[in-house]
Amino acid sequence: MIPEAQPPHRADNDVPPSKLRARRLGIDTQHEAVVFMRHDCHVCRSEGLTAHARIQLTHGQRSIIATLYHVRSDLLQPEEAGLSEPAWRRLGLKGGEEIVVSHAPTPESLSRLRAKVYGQRLDEGSLGNILSDVVAGRYSDIHLSSFITACAARSLDRPETTALTRAMVDIGDKLEWNVRPVMDKHSVGGLPGNRTTPIVVAIVAAHGLTIPKTSSRAITSPAGTADTMETMAPVDLDIAAMRRVVEREGGCIVWGGAVRLSPADDILIRIERALDLDNGGQLVASVLSKKVAAGSTHLVIDMPVGPTAKIRTPEAAAAVSASLLEVSEAFGIRTKIVAADGTQPVGRGIGPALEARDVLSVLQNAADAPADLRERALALAGALLELAEVVRGDGLDVARQTLADGRAWKKFQRICEAQGGMRQPPLAAHQRPQPAEQGGHVSRIDNRRIAKVAKLAGAPDGKAAGVQLLKRLGDRVEPGEPLFVVHAETRGELAYAMQYLAANRDIVTVADG
Amino acid sequence: MIPEAQPPHRADNDVPPSKLRARRLGIDTQHEAVVFMRHDCHVCRSEGLTAHARIQLTHGQRSIIATLYHVRSDLLQPEEAGLSEPAWRRLGLKGGEEIVVSHAPTPESLSRLRAKVYGQRLDEGSLGNILSDVVAGRYSDIHLSSFITACAARSLDRPETTALTRAMVDIGDKLEWNVRPVMDKHSVGGLPGNRTTPIVVAIVAAHGLTIPKTSSRAITSPAGTADTMETMAPVDLDIAAMRRVVEREGGCIVWGGAVRLSPADDILIRIERALDLDNGGQLVASVLSKKVAAGSTHLVIDMPVGPTAKIRTPEAAAAVSASLLEVSEAFGIRTKIVAADGTQPVGRGIGPALEARDVLSVLQNAADAPADLRERALALAGALLELAEVVRGDGLDVARQTLADGRAWKKFQRICEAQGGMRQPPLAAHQRPQPAEQGGHVSRIDNRRIAKVAKLAGAPDGKAAGVQLLKRLGDRVEPGEPLFVVHAETRGELAYAMQYLAANRDIVTVADG
Repeated sequence: MIPEAQPPHRADNDVPPSKLRARRLGIDTQHEAVVFMRHDCHVCRSEGLTAHARIQLTHGQRSIIATLYHVRSDLLQPEEAGLSEPAWRRLGLKGGEEIVVSHAPTPESLSRLRAKVYGQRLDEGSLGNILSDVVAGRYSDIHLSSFITACAARSLDRPETTALTRAMVDIGDKLEWNVRPVMDKHSVGGLPGNRTTPIVVAIVAAHGLTIPKTSSRAITSPAGTADTMETMAPVDLDIAAMRRVVEREGGCIVWGGAVRLSPADDILIRIERALDLDNGGQLVASVLSKKVAAGSTHLVIDMPVGPTAKIRTPEAAAAVSASLLEVSEAFGIRTKIVAADGTQPVGRGIGPALEARDVLSVLQNAADAPADLRERALALAGALLELAEVVRGDGLDVARQTLADGRAWKKFQRICEAQGGMRQPPLAAHQRPQPAEQGGHVSRIDNRRIAKVAKLAGAPDGKAAGVQLLKRLGDRVEPGEPLFVVHAETRGELAYAMQYLAANRDIVTVADG
Repeated sequence: MIPEAQPPHRADNDVPPSKLRARRLGIDTQHEAVVFMRHDCHVCRSEGLTAHARIQLTHGQRSIIATLYHVRSDLLQPEEAGLSEPAWRRLGLKGGEEIVVSHAPTPESLSRLRAKVYGQRLDEGSLGNILSDVVAGRYSDIHLSSFITACAARSLDRPETTALTRAMVDIGDKLEWNVRPVMDKHSVGGLPGNRTTPIVVAIVAAHGLTIPKTSSRAITSPAGTADTMETMAPVDLDIAAMRRVVEREGGCIVWGGAVRLSPADDILIRIERALDLDNGGQLVASVLSKKVAAGSTHLVIDMPVGPTAKIRTPEAAAAVSASLLEVSEAFGIRTKIVAADGTQPVGRGIGPALEARDVLSVLQNAADAPADLRERALALAGALLELAEVVRGDGLDVARQTLADGRAWKKFQRICEAQGGMRQPPLAAHQRPQPAEQGGHVSRIDNRRIAKVAKLAGAPDGKAAGVQLLKRLGDRVEPGEPLFVVHAETRGELAYAMQYLAANRDIVTVADG
């Protein structure tokens, strides 16, 4: 998410222009723009710019705020300013331009943030000011962390949560649809392999409903839903193309990167993750702002509950659910929450193509399709059908029937065609089974390390790479029988994964008996 | 994209050791260690290390936590890890070594921080854990900001403030003196030009008292006390040398950099400054932890109160004073607070040597010595003499007498000699008076912009550089009469300052009449 550059802060008679020549350093600093300057350059000296200072960079009509690091080596010349990738992009530079450097003005909304720290409630105007500074890149990590912490220490009440949701919606793009209802689903804290989305969309769209679904790519996991879907059809659609698919087929499963729905969310989530603070109001605003912005009217939320899931206890689930339902109502969204077991990964494949194979086997009613993935998808699809009031009786039964009689599979193929053409998930050139060293029953699978094997083997960049689990908890195993198969696109990546496995023989534990 | 296979290295059974060659980049990232790695290097890919991740770097027995930035250019080779200066120093590298890279463990004290966010009080053990993680560099800016914000939102009560002070002392070095009392002074949020320390130390030491003063260098201002003192004597003394000076003369004025008193303080202060949160407990712990660690037994605190000072209102001064006195007592320090006008800068010089000239003129009882600087120094010295109970009657009178009869000046010279030899503050090669455009009375001086002129002219690195005010508020001025003189060591720096002045003709306002 790249904030738009802002028009320059009004240069008054305060600053004699301090210019440096811009140089692209190719350093990815994510959201935070960073600039590198020689500590002994005339600008640092005369402006008294210390390391870590927030400074303003201006080129023509564009102006951004960046964090300064001093360079004490010949990495840069004294007349150069080295820019990180977000700084370079936001200033729209080509190379060699002169940029004006000055002290950054303090973001005005910091006074609202301070008021929140001291216990004042935030109204919608204040939240709007804060979020617009956040999205414009005027908040450093220090400011962002203070905002997240203040909202946890002085927890957001219901009106504040609603106001935060509204402000997050208003700061980004909005999708509008000419039909109603507009169906949607969301998973809170996804489990590995929990690729229900393509199945749910296919079932719901097969009933003539509208379900324009955007999904994300993997950040730290071996696959995101968009990565998995991409092995079956193009997902990199712009808004116009997405609309055409939805008009034709009712549903789509595309990458959300082309749409800027609730752009503050990605920025805040990175900080929340680093702090690991339970922050109900932020979670509710994060989920619902994207749904409101996407124009959804009916929503089912998949909420895995378990010790390693995002929601850890039934009590926490109940509190968040109450808030989600109440704020949903304030925005006119009919929401249902489906709580589910969150202790085990779902399906057999780990990695984009391998997860896609699980999805396809469910859609095609294959005999060996993973039952856990199917049942989760059916529960969510059934809940959506009931919410939309298009079925009589039990939504789950209707969803099951839609899958069993091939309507879901047919709809899925049509959606893939509409998105640019269905394709077969690739099969890895290199596959290596991992045999059990002894017989018995599978008593434990280390999810964290199995995901690491999949990443060492190349997932998610290597679409075909990953791990295919052949045995699951409780399964009987003979000595020498394969427990799982490592898939890799290159010999080198296979070697990495096998090397790791050689040193980690206990990722899948087989107990006697 | 395909990493070259490296020869396997085995460390433990969890991680196939991910090694990269260390390269020094000469980038000053202050407290936070930063490491730069190619996004496509085998370590980032296999470990799934994303930009901004916290990672652990190990070399031999040393291990540090650093923030990762990805490089997408040939700034680095794929097998290289580029280290910032703090990372390089803490790992004790020489160049070309291989370092092991892995995910950073989460700092254990974050659970204590989270408990504080949710309203639990922090005990001394928890604060000790937090501060030891802070000082070891295990907290990122995001964590530090959360700690500062939590302590403002859930303000520290008296026992927590005492516990924080104790924990800050325990984490650093401590000085011990074989004499009592050990006198000290501190200014809360210094005013420009407020260089009372050398005068106070000279007067107090002239009475046979022990006053081992450590001072700081400028961070964002045109001069710190250590910068000013350095123009008159060496200040860069180690602890042994400092002890020898104090044993011989009773007092010293040295740079605090050689002693690690309350090292968490500098780290936290940078974050507090960025957030601008009023945080009484942190302020008290910040001031007193350094005094306790320095072994002080008697303390006078100079507290300027004014709209642009750190303490803005008499009410705030009263609240902070009560807390300072109570926590001082818990540590057995006798403390007196001297509130003072904080609306105007003190003395005439702005910049190290120019401020030193003010100090010398006071010590030498020159006819034109700045009275405001003298009176402030006398008030503080008098309070210290009273605290130490070495005077009968009025401390201020005794201090005034000690200055007037030359004992303070004599003691100051002896201290300078003991520190390595007294020297004359340098005089700038380039001086340019700034004439008044019209006659009248000085009605306003813009302190912020006058400090900027001093920095543009080269202060504090240019010791002789700065601004010498010739007229002060209320003074009568004839047309063309100089208002102040800009001092610079080089022609280029003089030009910067004059260019700025040309665009800012209203830094000193002269009103008719």
